[in-house]
Amino acid sequence: MKALLLIAHGSRRKQSNDEVVVLAEKLKKNCAEQYEIIHAGFLELAQPMIPDGIKKCVEEGATSIVVLPYFLNSGRHVVEDIPNIVSETKLDYPNIDIKIAPHLGASDLMMALLIATANATN
Amino acid sequence: MKALLLIAHGSRRKQSNDEVVVLAEKLKKNCAEQYEIIHAGFLELAQPMIPDGIKKCVEEGATSIVVLPYFLNSGRHVVEDIPNIVSETKLDYPNIDIKIAPHLGASDLMMALLIATANATN
Repeated sequence: MKALLLIAHGSRRKQSNDEVVVLAEKLKKNCAEQYEIIHAGFLELAQPMIPDGIKKCVEEGATSIVVLPYFLNSGRHVVEDIPNIVSETKLDYPNIDIKIAPHLGASDLMMALLIATANATN
Repeated sequence: MKALLLIAHGSRRKQSNDEVVVLAEKLKKNCAEQYEIIHAGFLELAQPMIPDGIKKCVEEGATSIVVLPYFLNSGRHVVEDIPNIVSETKLDYPNIDIKIAPHLGASDLMMALLIATANATN
């Protein structure tokens, strides 16, 4: 059973964190066939944090988990912090295949998204 | 003449800022017909900042400018800081049409981008 764990930075502003949870719910409706389990998680400042998000996926029966960083730039969080936390958490689940997806800014589709968003101005 | 000003947060990490400049250059190749002038700018920590980015567009002949926040969440930066800076800068250019695009997280295409990025894992 495949799981998708959407990881945002986490904010002191509750509304920002709620947006991520809503996005994960939207994702659930859009790719339930591919990923039967989808949750949101946070690097810091909000719950569940990454290890708890992974735990939740495993408890619901995930055998493979894609951790998807909801980050635009390849900053320290993407390059170091998230990989380090995921590597450490992996030790608790030796039989689960846990991978980290590229960050969003790296995708070719980002171009289409930027243009569509600019054009939504009028 | 239409201009697009891509605004990122700005980082102490030069590589992160360079990524935004590269993204703006990529955009130039992808939508030069729609936006003849495209630049990157930053809210803080990097140059050019928003007022200088707008100035640059105007000096190159822009008559309308779309300010596109390269931000995922509707946090304080998107809801308050960028609109405030743009409103203030607008006073210097009463004849230029300056608008702010929605932030990226608000776009329907975000869903497609998330799914494509997750699938790029293997």
